Amino acid sequence: MRDQPQGPRHPANLTRRNLVAGAAAAIGLAMLRRGPFAQVGPTSDPPRVPGGPATPLGARAPNEQPKRVVGGVNREISLTPLQDLRGIVTPSDLHYERHHAGVPIIDPRQYKLLIHGMVDRPTIFDLDALKRFPAVSRFHFLECSGNGEGAFRNIRREQSPQLVDGLTSTSEWTGVALATLLREVGVRPGAKWMLAEGGDAALMARSIPVEKAWADAMIAYGQNGEALRPEQGYPARLLLPGWEGNANVKWIRRLEFAARPFMTRDETSKYTDPLSNGTARMFSFVMDAKSVITFPAFPARLRARGWWDVTGLAWSGRGRITRVDVSTDGGRTWASAVLEQPVLPQCHTRFCFPWKWDGTEALLMSRATDETGYVQPSLAQLRSARGPGTRYHFNHIRAWRVGSDGSVFFGVEG
Amino acid sequence: MRDQPQGPRHPANLTRRNLVAGAAAAIGLAMLRRGPFAQVGPTSDPPRVPGGPATPLGARAPNEQPKRVVGGVNREISLTPLQDLRGIVTPSDLHYERHHAGVPIIDPRQYKLLIHGMVDRPTIFDLDALKRFPAVSRFHFLECSGNGEGAFRNIRREQSPQLVDGLTSTSEWTGVALATLLREVGVRPGAKWMLAEGGDAALMARSIPVEKAWADAMIAYGQNGEALRPEQGYPARLLLPGWEGNANVKWIRRLEFAARPFMTRDETSKYTDPLSNGTARMFSFVMDAKSVITFPAFPARLRARGWWDVTGLAWSGRGRITRVDVSTDGGRTWASAVLEQPVLPQCHTRFCFPWKWDGTEALLMSRATDETGYVQPSLAQLRSARGPGTRYHFNHIRAWRVGSDGSVFFGVEG
Repeated sequence: MRDQPQGPRHPANLTRRNLVAGAAAAIGLAMLRRGPFAQVGPTSDPPRVPGGPATPLGARAPNEQPKRVVGGVNREISLTPLQDLRGIVTPSDLHYERHHAGVPIIDPRQYKLLIHGMVDRPTIFDLDALKRFPAVSRFHFLECSGNGEGAFRNIRREQSPQLVDGLTSTSEWTGVALATLLREVGVRPGAKWMLAEGGDAALMARSIPVEKAWADAMIAYGQNGEALRPEQGYPARLLLPGWEGNANVKWIRRLEFAARPFMTRDETSKYTDPLSNGTARMFSFVMDAKSVITFPAFPARLRARGWWDVTGLAWSGRGRITRVDVSTDGGRTWASAVLEQPVLPQCHTRFCFPWKWDGTEALLMSRATDETGYVQPSLAQLRSARGPGTRYHFNHIRAWRVGSDGSVFFGVEG
Repeated sequence: MRDQPQGPRHPANLTRRNLVAGAAAAIGLAMLRRGPFAQVGPTSDPPRVPGGPATPLGARAPNEQPKRVVGGVNREISLTPLQDLRGIVTPSDLHYERHHAGVPIIDPRQYKLLIHGMVDRPTIFDLDALKRFPAVSRFHFLECSGNGEGAFRNIRREQSPQLVDGLTSTSEWTGVALATLLREVGVRPGAKWMLAEGGDAALMARSIPVEKAWADAMIAYGQNGEALRPEQGYPARLLLPGWEGNANVKWIRRLEFAARPFMTRDETSKYTDPLSNGTARMFSFVMDAKSVITFPAFPARLRARGWWDVTGLAWSGRGRITRVDVSTDGGRTWASAVLEQPVLPQCHTRFCFPWKWDGTEALLMSRATDETGYVQPSLAQLRSARGPGTRYHFNHIRAWRVGSDGSVFFGVEG
C-alpha cells in the first residue's frame, strides 16, 4: 500500500530540532513585539515564521473551499458537495437548499408560531417561548424528494455525487418536541391531520398525519449547535425525521389541526407522484433506504493500482441502516462494507470498503438495507414499481464505472 | 408554563391563506422575471416579498453572530461561545484555539509526515498517502488542560461559560487510525514512547506513550466533514481522544519512536503540574470527567418564575458519561439530569434538567460521573488533592448564583 519513498528523506532541519526551535522562538518574540500579522497564503517555511493570531471566527484554509452548486431556473436549489465531505455531519453553510419563493430573512423578534384548529387552547408562541420548553437535540438527514433524478433519467456520465444526489445533508437539530406543544394546546382526539404552513412568500404548506406530529416531530430552532441558517428556515422549522424535505416546512408560522388533509397546492400540483396505471402516490412522505458512493466517483481518478478506500453514505427514513453491501463487478457479487459509528436512526451513516483495484475496468455499486429489512432496489425494480414518469423518490442503486485509466464516470446498472 | 397570549390573535392574513398565497405567487413571478435580489436585512413582510436566491456558501442570520472571544498576551487563544450553542457539535469556525507560535498556513502539496526512530521502515507520508488509507470518523471533544482556571483562582462573578470554560469543543474528526500507520512502518517492540512534533514555528512537541498510539489515536485531516481548519492543524494533526489538547499536536510533521520520553520543553517547562508536596504531576494526559451548565449562566437572566430548562455539557477523557446530577440548592440535594442521545465516549454529552424556579435565590451546580465510576470533584476536593498552585486540569464542580431578580452570576461552591 505504500507508494511513498522509503527511508528518512526528511528535511535537514528535522535533525536540528533544538536549534531551529530556539531560532523560531527568537523570531517569534520579535514578531510578537510587532504584533501578529495577517496571513495571505501558504507560509513558505512554517517552522521558521510565526503564524497568525487567534480570531473571533475561523476561515477555511486557502486550498479548501468546498461549495454548493446552485441550480434551478430561479436559483431555488443548491447541492451539498458530497464528494468533498467525510463523516456524517454537513457543515451548515454547505447544507443543501430547496425553496419555493426564495429565502426570507425573518426578524426573530417578530416571529410567531400559531397553533389552532381542533385544539382546546389555540396559542401563539414567540421564539423565546419555544426556547423555554425542554429542548431535544438529534442528528437527522434531510433529503429532497426529487433528489437523484439525474440517476433515473437524463443520465450523464460526467456527474459528481454532488450533482446526482447533493440534495441531502445531515445536521444536529435542536428544538422543542412537537408533542410537548401538542400537549400544551390540547390537540383534540378527532384531529387526524396537521397543516404545516411556512412564512415564506410561497406560503409552502403540507398536511401531516397527526401520528407523526406526536411521534418524533420537532419545531427546530438550532442546527449544528447554533441558530438555524436562513435557508434552513430561521428562526424555526418543522422537522419530521426521515420524511421528504418539503414536508419539513421551513419558516414555520402555523399549525392547524383538522379531521382531513388540507389538499394544498404543494401536495396536489407537486409532491404527488403519477404512476403508470393512471393513479398517483399521495402523501408519500417516507424516504426509503438509499446509499451513494462518494469516493471513487466522478471527477476523482484512481492514480495507481492497489488498495483504495471506497466510501459513501447510506440512510433510511424508516430507522437505522443495518447493512451496506458493495459490489465492484456491477452487482454480480457483493460484500459487506464497514459502518462507521455512530449509526443513528434517520441519519446519514458512513460506510467504508477497502478495495484492491487491479487496474481493469470495474463497476462499483452500493446497496443499503435498513432495520425494517427494506433493501435498496435496482433501477429496473424501481422503474417497474413506479413507471418511467415518476418524479420523486429516486432511491435505486447507483453505479460508478472505473476505467482502466483510473477515470471514474457515473454509470447505469440497467 | 405558557406565558404567551391565549387564543387566535394571529395576523389577519393568516385567515386569508389562499388569497395571500395567490398574491405572493403573482409577486413572486414578477420578481423572478427580474431575477432574485440580495437581502440586506430582515424582510418587513416575508409572506409578501420573494426571498433571496440559493448561494454557493451559506451565511448566518443577521441576528445570530456567535463569536469566539480572543485572549492571551499574544492572541494565542480563543474561546468557544458555549452559552450560545446547543447539542454537542461545535461549528468548525467556533472551535476553540490554542497555539504557541500562531497559526501557520501550510501548503498541502508541501505537507509531509515523517515516522522514524525505532521502526523497521522509516517512511515519509504525503497528504494523498494519508488519505488513501482506510479512514475513520469519530466524534470527540478536545479540551485545553488549562481550561477553567477562572473557576479555580481569580474568580469573577461576571464570567460567562465561554470565559470560564470555553477552551473545549467537539468535532467529528476524520483521519487514518495511527495503528494503521504504525503497522505500516513496523514499530519495534522496544519502542515505548512516541515524540509528536508539530510543523508550526513553536515546533510544539510531546512524548506520547506508545499504548495510546496503538489504542485509538488518529492522524486527523478532517473536521466536521471537511478539511481541518488552519487553527486546528491543517492539513493534519494528531488526535488523542480524551487527552489534554496540547498533546493532540497540530500541523503534525514528525513521529519518532524511542524507549524513553523525550522530555521536551512542552512537557517540562509547561504542562507539568507542581503539587504542594514539592513533587509534580508529569504526563497527566487524561482529562477527568467534568460538566458545565451553559444555561442559565451569566449573562443570561431569568425573566419570569416557573419552568426553565437547565442545560449544559459533560464529558470525560476516560469514556462515556453515565450520569449528570444537578443541584439547585448549592449541593445539599441532587437529582439526575436527562442525557441527550447519542452519548459517545470521549465526547461532549448534552444534559437537560427541567427546573421550576420559585423566584428565590438559588445556587445551581452540575456533577458528572463517567463509566469508570469517577465523580467530578468539588473545588475543596480538587484543592486538597492538587494544592493551590496547580495550573492544569480544573475539572471541579462549577456553581451559578441565581438572584431573586433573575440575574445569574458565576459563583463559588466552597
